[in-house]
Amino acid sequence: MIKFVYPGSFDPLTKGHVDIIERGAKLADRLIVGILMNATKQPMFTLEERIEIIQAGISHLSNVDIIPFDGLLVDFLKQQEARTVVRGLRAVSDFEYELQMAQANRNLYPEMETIFLCTNVEYSFISSTVVKDILRHGGDISHLVPEESIHIIEKILGGKENGSGSTDGN
Amino acid sequence: MIKFVYPGSFDPLTKGHVDIIERGAKLADRLIVGILMNATKQPMFTLEERIEIIQAGISHLSNVDIIPFDGLLVDFLKQQEARTVVRGLRAVSDFEYELQMAQANRNLYPEMETIFLCTNVEYSFISSTVVKDILRHGGDISHLVPEESIHIIEKILGGKENGSGSTDGN
Amino acid sequence: MIKFVYPGSFDPLTKGHVDIIERGAKLADRLIVGILMNATKQPMFTLEERIEIIQAGISHLSNVDIIPFDGLLVDFLKQQEARTVVRGLRAVSDFEYELQMAQANRNLYPEMETIFLCTNVEYSFISSTVVKDILRHGGDISHLVPEESIHIIEKILGGKENGSGSTDGN
Amino acid sequence: MIKFVYPGSFDPLTKGHVDIIERGAKLADRLIVGILMNATKQPMFTLEERIEIIQAGISHLSNVDIIPFDGLLVDFLKQQEARTVVRGLRAVSDFEYELQMAQANRNLYPEMETIFLCTNVEYSFISSTVVKDILRHGGDISHLVPEESIHIIEKILGGKENGSGSTDGN
Amino acid sequence: MIKFVYPGSFDPLTKGHVDIIERGAKLADRLIVGILMNATKQPMFTLEERIEIIQAGISHLSNVDIIPFDGLLVDFLKQQEARTVVRGLRAVSDFEYELQMAQANRNLYPEMETIFLCTNVEYSFISSTVVKDILRHGGDISHLVPEESIHIIEKILGGKENGSGSTDGN
Amino acid sequence: MIKFVYPGSFDPLTKGHVDIIERGAKLADRLIVGILMNATKQPMFTLEERIEIIQAGISHLSNVDIIPFDGLLVDFLKQQEARTVVRGLRAVSDFEYELQMAQANRNLYPEMETIFLCTNVEYSFISSTVVKDILRHGGDISHLVPEESIHIIEKILGGKENGSGSTDGN
Repeated sequence: MIKFVYPGSFDPLTKGHVDIIERGAKLADRLIVGILMNATKQPMFTLEERIEIIQAGISHLSNVDIIPFDGLLVDFLKQQEARTVVRGLRAVSDFEYELQMAQANRNLYPEMETIFLCTNVEYSFISSTVVKDILRHGGDISHLVPEESIHIIEKILGGKENGSGSTDGN
Repeated sequence: MIKFVYPGSFDPLTKGHVDIIERGAKLADRLIVGILMNATKQPMFTLEERIEIIQAGISHLSNVDIIPFDGLLVDFLKQQEARTVVRGLRAVSDFEYELQMAQANRNLYPEMETIFLCTNVEYSFISSTVVKDILRHGGDISHLVPEESIHIIEKILGGKENGSGSTDGN
Repeated sequence: MIKFVYPGSFDPLTKGHVDIIERGAKLADRLIVGILMNATKQPMFTLEERIEIIQAGISHLSNVDIIPFDGLLVDFLKQQEARTVVRGLRAVSDFEYELQMAQANRNLYPEMETIFLCTNVEYSFISSTVVKDILRHGGDISHLVPEESIHIIEKILGGKENGSGSTDGN
Repeated sequence: MIKFVYPGSFDPLTKGHVDIIERGAKLADRLIVGILMNATKQPMFTLEERIEIIQAGISHLSNVDIIPFDGLLVDFLKQQEARTVVRGLRAVSDFEYELQMAQANRNLYPEMETIFLCTNVEYSFISSTVVKDILRHGGDISHLVPEESIHIIEKILGGKENGSGSTDGN
Repeated sequence: MIKFVYPGSFDPLTKGHVDIIERGAKLADRLIVGILMNATKQPMFTLEERIEIIQAGISHLSNVDIIPFDGLLVDFLKQQEARTVVRGLRAVSDFEYELQMAQANRNLYPEMETIFLCTNVEYSFISSTVVKDILRHGGDISHLVPEESIHIIEKILGGKENGSGSTDGN
Repeated sequence: MIKFVYPGSFDPLTKGHVDIIERGAKLADRLIVGILMNATKQPMFTLEERIEIIQAGISHLSNVDIIPFDGLLVDFLKQQEARTVVRGLRAVSDFEYELQMAQANRNLYPEMETIFLCTNVEYSFISSTVVKDILRHGGDISHLVPEESIHIIEKILGGKENGSGSTDGN
């Protein structure tokens, strides 16, 4: 069985992510969306919220699992008995960082392989950072995020507005 | 009337910014320097200080306005009844980010156009970050910042040194 | 009157070129498509054929002229009494070359300005080289070249096949 | 059955090519090395010589076929009933060209997918052009080309030296 | 006497740093490793710890000094009566930043020269950031950091784990 | 004695070349300008003409020799008993090619070192290709080529115009 792992922060899921998930899921028997739990930056969405948004956006795919992980990617791969990582490439700066990570990971786990898919041009300008920037100012994200995920995001942000503490997600 | 918007943090204005402002102001009837009020990073200069520094540096230009804004660039454009954004290009990393933003903005506001001018080579190594780094260590910024703005910067930083609270600008 | 010059080989015109022509023509009163007559490489289409293909592809635009030129771009600009060149940016390699040419030209003609527009993402992978490569192997170019220009291209290539001498365009 | 196609000129095969072939052959049931017959530039080695050099260099791999092709890559894929292309990435300039070709090909054949593997760092500076440059000056290529292929290359070039016509390979 | 300065944060020293130090030390009579004391980001290792790690890693080199500095690099150069800075180049993003800094420094100190050495390919994927990331998750750094420095790092991190306050280095 | 080799085609010498020669000559006891005799492309200037143009442009430097070479750079280095190559860096595309060549050369001659100097910003847009392009169309090259070399170039091209055969240099 061919098993791919697609790791990321997904804060939140974008149409670009879904493009890579769909295409990776065609090449493999099973694709694991690995959500990095403790990224260094403060996320806008909690782990549970990120999972809920992804579940809505990829409900049309039957061979995809969503599994959070902490620690090194290579340890997550071994734990999942997977050897192949999928990554999307958009721009030159992506490319250099991804190449460095792929080489560093191969030193830690020589059996591991990283395959790169190039993001469809129409999604090449989308990033989670852009989505968060527009959300913070109340802009329209319908061309950036899968339709099925948008109402989840609206529900989450609506709840935060009515609540007390969080000042980051509004 | 052709109206251009040149958005940025201008923390502080550099000779590279003035180069783009001068050249943009030749192509348009009116150029608006749009100062992003709440950039994510803690600025070295307050909004009022940034405005004062810009006013000194572009006093020789008659068709340029300085207007602060908050929120999405596309909303600022609509409010100013402008459709054209001007940006300077220096290096490849600039280029990729600028292209992504231009594409994302066009999705939010299809009538909008972004035009890029390439910064004069002699200013291509200058950035506000470099200026702040040199200021923090008491170095000479006379080749980086317009002559007319330097005494404003010196006055501001001198005042902060004598004052009590600010620890960032010294 | 604001006059822009958009120089190139246009061997042949692509949808990416038309995107830049349309957007440049909105910013200027008049846009001149300057066809470089003697590019160093052997063109697939003669100057007359390239003009005919462009005429078909931009017939919906009223403020665009097609003028061939030879020699230095700065001399063509002076002859046309224009100061502003428009160029499209797609990838990093474009960017570096274009920046070098813009700087070199400004040394030859200081009043000249080059403005860059970023090609719409959906056309960012298109180049005349790709079009010629597909044409040589009888592939489908309908997503690469404006609809109005395709029958001109087919007529030209059909004529060459039936004729005697040319071996390059088949 | 998962079938990959790895297209190229292979003029001649390098250790970098073998790295990608080995890794692609692990991910697929069958990998086809597709040799582009009529590349635009004059090759140093004939098609038959290139095949012989590849056969020597990959004799340790059992699920790899070598098949020459002419025309469009997408037509070769359809003829081979394959949908997936493998490409190696070394540098930024590679990356941009490869991304453009991947997007252009997907327009011609939407079911097609291109996956990129990053060349092992120790081979990242190797290209067929470098190999040919060193061969022309009688330098040592043992760190650039698989050991098994070197005596084939020496035999070919030795034969050409003793022969009459060829002036390019000496 | 030819004196080179190799500035950096060295948080911590990597095999890539040692590669540049060794090669710079061959070109100069004396090479100064200049440790930037107050880099903006919170370091994982204190200045004293960073010095101890470097001392272990370069003990085989007799013409290298380790000197911490604060403030502008050009002021450190003048104080050390040195004019030449050595920097390693790995990727395109390095290259652009380094070029900007080299140009900015030359404006502050025209006699200064920056020479770039390209990091050996086998170390080109290594950075202090990658080392810290692996250390935080208890991974193996033996291929990233000189052997002589590893037990120092282990001793430092072991001491922090047993201690009370620090939460960053664990 | 520290001996540097600065290899290139120098067809013709530019102000950017002179900038690198001057700065390299300060770092070394002796700098050899190594002129590649048989570059693949057809040069505009013969070897003798290129030497004459360089001699005029660097007559103010006393520790610089001009020596033509053919074959591999590493063989030229060994013959000159030199180990250090100097190269100028301008743009990202330069950088990648130069890095590949530096790595390939180090495999052929491990004692060899390549040091990179970044071309002064004001010369960063200049290349021999740009100079030739402007010369072919009778444009002004006074900002691109050292003053002392210009009358040599004019004399050479004037002679070719009056002569019979050459069509390339006019």
